[in-house]
Amino acid sequence: MNEKQIAIIMGSDSDLNIVNETIKVLKEFGVSHSVMVASAHRTPDVVSEFATNAEANGVKLIIAAAGAAAHLGGVIAAHTNLPVIGIPIDATSFNGLDALLSIVQMPGGVPVASMAVGKAGAKNAGLFAIQILALSDDSLKKKLKQYKEDMKAKVAEKNKKLQSMI
Amino acid sequence: MNEKQIAIIMGSDSDLNIVNETIKVLKEFGVSHSVMVASAHRTPDVVSEFATNAEANGVKLIIAAAGAAAHLGGVIAAHTNLPVIGIPIDATSFNGLDALLSIVQMPGGVPVASMAVGKAGAKNAGLFAIQILALSDDSLKKKLKQYKEDMKAKVAEKNKKLQSMI
Amino acid sequence: MNEKQIAIIMGSDSDLNIVNETIKVLKEFGVSHSVMVASAHRTPDVVSEFATNAEANGVKLIIAAAGAAAHLGGVIAAHTNLPVIGIPIDATSFNGLDALLSIVQMPGGVPVASMAVGKAGAKNAGLFAIQILALSDDSLKKKLKQYKEDMKAKVAEKNKKLQSMI
Amino acid sequence: MNEKQIAIIMGSDSDLNIVNETIKVLKEFGVSHSVMVASAHRTPDVVSEFATNAEANGVKLIIAAAGAAAHLGGVIAAHTNLPVIGIPIDATSFNGLDALLSIVQMPGGVPVASMAVGKAGAKNAGLFAIQILALSDDSLKKKLKQYKEDMKAKVAEKNKKLQSMI
Amino acid sequence: MNEKQIAIIMGSDSDLNIVNETIKVLKEFGVSHSVMVASAHRTPDVVSEFATNAEANGVKLIIAAAGAAAHLGGVIAAHTNLPVIGIPIDATSFNGLDALLSIVQMPGGVPVASMAVGKAGAKNAGLFAIQILALSDDSLKKKLKQYKEDMKAKVAEKNKKLQSMI
Amino acid sequence: MNEKQIAIIMGSDSDLNIVNETIKVLKEFGVSHSVMVASAHRTPDVVSEFATNAEANGVKLIIAAAGAAAHLGGVIAAHTNLPVIGIPIDATSFNGLDALLSIVQMPGGVPVASMAVGKAGAKNAGLFAIQILALSDDSLKKKLKQYKEDMKAKVAEKNKKLQSMI
Amino acid sequence: MNEKQIAIIMGSDSDLNIVNETIKVLKEFGVSHSVMVASAHRTPDVVSEFATNAEANGVKLIIAAAGAAAHLGGVIAAHTNLPVIGIPIDATSFNGLDALLSIVQMPGGVPVASMAVGKAGAKNAGLFAIQILALSDDSLKKKLKQYKEDMKAKVAEKNKKLQSMI
Amino acid sequence: MNEKQIAIIMGSDSDLNIVNETIKVLKEFGVSHSVMVASAHRTPDVVSEFATNAEANGVKLIIAAAGAAAHLGGVIAAHTNLPVIGIPIDATSFNGLDALLSIVQMPGGVPVASMAVGKAGAKNAGLFAIQILALSDDSLKKKLKQYKEDMKAKVAEKNKKLQSMI
Repeated sequence: MNEKQIAIIMGSDSDLNIVNETIKVLKEFGVSHSVMVASAHRTPDVVSEFATNAEANGVKLIIAAAGAAAHLGGVIAAHTNLPVIGIPIDATSFNGLDALLSIVQMPGGVPVASMAVGKAGAKNAGLFAIQILALSDDSLKKKLKQYKEDMKAKVAEKNKKLQSMI
Repeated sequence: MNEKQIAIIMGSDSDLNIVNETIKVLKEFGVSHSVMVASAHRTPDVVSEFATNAEANGVKLIIAAAGAAAHLGGVIAAHTNLPVIGIPIDATSFNGLDALLSIVQMPGGVPVASMAVGKAGAKNAGLFAIQILALSDDSLKKKLKQYKEDMKAKVAEKNKKLQSMI
Repeated sequence: MNEKQIAIIMGSDSDLNIVNETIKVLKEFGVSHSVMVASAHRTPDVVSEFATNAEANGVKLIIAAAGAAAHLGGVIAAHTNLPVIGIPIDATSFNGLDALLSIVQMPGGVPVASMAVGKAGAKNAGLFAIQILALSDDSLKKKLKQYKEDMKAKVAEKNKKLQSMI
Repeated sequence: MNEKQIAIIMGSDSDLNIVNETIKVLKEFGVSHSVMVASAHRTPDVVSEFATNAEANGVKLIIAAAGAAAHLGGVIAAHTNLPVIGIPIDATSFNGLDALLSIVQMPGGVPVASMAVGKAGAKNAGLFAIQILALSDDSLKKKLKQYKEDMKAKVAEKNKKLQSMI
Repeated sequence: MNEKQIAIIMGSDSDLNIVNETIKVLKEFGVSHSVMVASAHRTPDVVSEFATNAEANGVKLIIAAAGAAAHLGGVIAAHTNLPVIGIPIDATSFNGLDALLSIVQMPGGVPVASMAVGKAGAKNAGLFAIQILALSDDSLKKKLKQYKEDMKAKVAEKNKKLQSMI
Repeated sequence: MNEKQIAIIMGSDSDLNIVNETIKVLKEFGVSHSVMVASAHRTPDVVSEFATNAEANGVKLIIAAAGAAAHLGGVIAAHTNLPVIGIPIDATSFNGLDALLSIVQMPGGVPVASMAVGKAGAKNAGLFAIQILALSDDSLKKKLKQYKEDMKAKVAEKNKKLQSMI
Repeated sequence: MNEKQIAIIMGSDSDLNIVNETIKVLKEFGVSHSVMVASAHRTPDVVSEFATNAEANGVKLIIAAAGAAAHLGGVIAAHTNLPVIGIPIDATSFNGLDALLSIVQMPGGVPVASMAVGKAGAKNAGLFAIQILALSDDSLKKKLKQYKEDMKAKVAEKNKKLQSMI
Repeated sequence: MNEKQIAIIMGSDSDLNIVNETIKVLKEFGVSHSVMVASAHRTPDVVSEFATNAEANGVKLIIAAAGAAAHLGGVIAAHTNLPVIGIPIDATSFNGLDALLSIVQMPGGVPVASMAVGKAGAKNAGLFAIQILALSDDSLKKKLKQYKEDMKAKVAEKNKKLQSMI
């Protein structure tokens, strides 16, 4: 089913608002990816099958976004040796602290790499995945260099604009 | 394998120190139980098989103890309709807050009942399980009444002792 | 007065907004229940009488929702051996952390089972109560199986919809 | 039974270590007091009877020390109009934050006055009680003035000692 | 200037919104009170003079409301032996936790009694003050009894209303 | 200088105790690595030079361990497009929360992948790095499979031992 | 480039809303200042060059405002011996706690002075900078005295207004 | 009395253990300083007199160390326009969070510059004070440069030692 390099999986369709930041980055870099709603708690078999077969299906990296007791990344990591990147979603009254701790505090032996809570984390999940793929893809390497240059230019521009305002 | 009424499962053998409080209570009330080390992250198939078959194996209630990103209870609850009781273990530098939030903040649809962090929670997990079994077991009902009376008596005794000290 | 299987009690009528999630689930499963406003602090005698007589009145399980210094579940548990399930309400500036800790951190000997803060917790309180009743009610058992299947189907449907969107 | 002005009640005899700071202050000021172990959860009837009758028994102020889900002060306040002062005890892995929030976050209508977590709070509970009694007791008023002078002198002395050290 | 029994002091006029809950209670009970804006940091001399002279001016109790680094209660307590009650205000991005800890964590020797953060705390500050005054005022004692009865009646009424709704 | 695949950099030599968990894993898998003490605050030029040249020096991944205001990972990520993995160290009174938030809350555009606080995180940093290298190294892929099998076997063994104990 | 006494640097142009409080104070006191957008993560070389040359460029004090993993102040302090004042910005779901800890928990050897989160902190960063400059500038000393007097007068006025309202 | 450039004041003599880090730095740089025990709560008049007269006594900077409800820095800042640097002490069960928030969350108009909790903060308080004095003292400027060089050298040495160990 999956022949995309990066598989994005989110625990609830309401997370799409955040996960869109990841998708935008992957599209910008032209990296093939799938997006899927599946829940560690509501559809555990879908998740474990997906994770178990991901490598065989050509997936290289999995990005898992979840809020509350965010077990999705950990459950996926339990079933695969592919790198798993977690995006904590702010979905409860605890501002994403529950999701962050559920993702980042994985016990020794089964890593999940946590990004920041919310949109910044979602964007960075995409970039981090690209940095990994770029290790064996010179064209992505070049695009990352350009991306960093563009960020610098944007900050410089904002600074310029600020100078004219004050 | 399992014909016990209550199945206790802990994520690491180092949790036994805490889980012993649960075992002691169950022994005191004469409730049959199994105890097992299995990890949502290190042995996910053992956990999902266990959870999937628990009801058929005669288990009535599952008690899951775990620390850090404590996914054990949630993963079990995803595979069974039996009541799942979680014991958060203080196993990291965050004093059990990570385990508590990973257990208690389950999303709607898949409940895990959280007890307090550590020994008090482990003891109460046992008592809560007994309260549930007692709903259809008059002998346990009587023992619970006696237990409550004994608690009162112990506090009264401690108070008496205190009066003689001050 | 009470001949319902499940008694829901909330500390303030303003909690109804949240507790409705519990009620909806119980109605969906056809489980008889009562709903009551009573406060551990403002009407302590109503609460203790209710709790003391609940078992004799045919109640099987008590669900207590409260915010702030949420003593309601603990006070009820002190007066009964029926299982008590707590729903922490986010009712102050502390986002429900005060209610959660007041409910989940019960001392050894007097358990209260905590659900998540807010609506997810309220929904799960209902489901958890049903899981307990299902231990001796095959029709509820079947409904729970169906409920789990429906959840899976809903997630699958959402995923399908997502695939058509991206 | 009680003819003492101040009633100290603690949820567990293990709290005596902290509560001793309160007792020492009351002894130093010569204020009559009783000390009692009673639990909102283990001996709820003892607590509610005590609280209901306290005023008639000549008690003027109640000091309640408790850890974890520290409901003791709130339960007492529910049954009396006497001022209730709470001492949060650090008795779990959460460093007393659970006890503090359980005590201080009382809902409108039923006040409990919280002191600091632990020994400083226990000492201050005694002093605050004395400040209240001093409103209608000139001898206590004088002693409080002297106490404040003594504190100043002790700090001055410590400062003097420090000067000689550095 | 001050011949009122209770002096309310707030760190900023923006706190009036909260402090109004205190004022309403005091008016309801017919207790004389003054209200004042003064800041421990912006008008330290006003605060220390006020506190130093409060007792001589006939004040019996001081209620101090402040947000952020809420030093007001502590600074007042340093200059008087009258009981000081603190109301933590939620005035920063930390939801009142900063104000609560600044108020409740007073060191041994100089008590400030903390109420809950925000409106519930403000209301309770008034009630707690009245409970103290009632120790030597039978008319207030009666009013407190009535107040408690009224609270009960209101909850009962809300419960009745709820019963007709569900 | 650096021709190792993985560069480990720690903010203080006192972090070695934790970082040893990373080193052990890398040695176990036979992955070449360098280890270095360098501080974002005390030796900023060493850090920025190291990061700027890492890719040219043949480094594929950088693991940065730091405590307190843990800027090390972020500063490195600012100067390279190689993937940066952060290990938060519990080095202050805040139990590693300061380090975790300083590492995980990176703004959009410059990712750092955070592992758990302390030893579990250090071990997982090593494993996560190996998972990344394994994307283009079949021998590492096999070793990871074996590692997962060994983990399972160890848990099974611990479970067996437990069964004989109880 | 810089010949202003105080250099304000912010990590993102979206921080201007907060930093304006600093600018207003500096303008009010007539202190020369520059304002700049530059990011420790997006434009690290701009930041390190700026910091390295600040002293030679006549800058006396640097004020750095940043949110999330707020490394800006620390990175600047690493490259200069000028005093660096940090303003934590509330820019994520963690209410500025991430920024505060990233700024205030600097390791020994490289100080950054933290102000409060948000507007109060931004205002105080300006005032603190002026207090430092005033050490060798009598005209600023006088203005600070006047500022303190004005604050007192404003509070007095607000109090007066309050008296007329109640 | 005071003719020293820097005045260190601590709320309790038990803070000396931490404050010694400040003293060591000031001695190392040869900066004259006084050290004093005085409490915002126990000796408020000593503190306000000290603060009011500090400038006239030749003090240039005040460093205030305090734990718990750490009002010392704020109270001093209320009485002077000299820069006040706060050191939060970890003196309660809250790990210094209470002290940090009491110090750093000062309201607009009255700044206190907060350092890190504990020894790192104490050391940095000294260094930050020296950075301020160095603005008009070239010999201190040189020493700061040397200090930074020495730090770099120490880290390099530690790195060298590490290389020989692994």
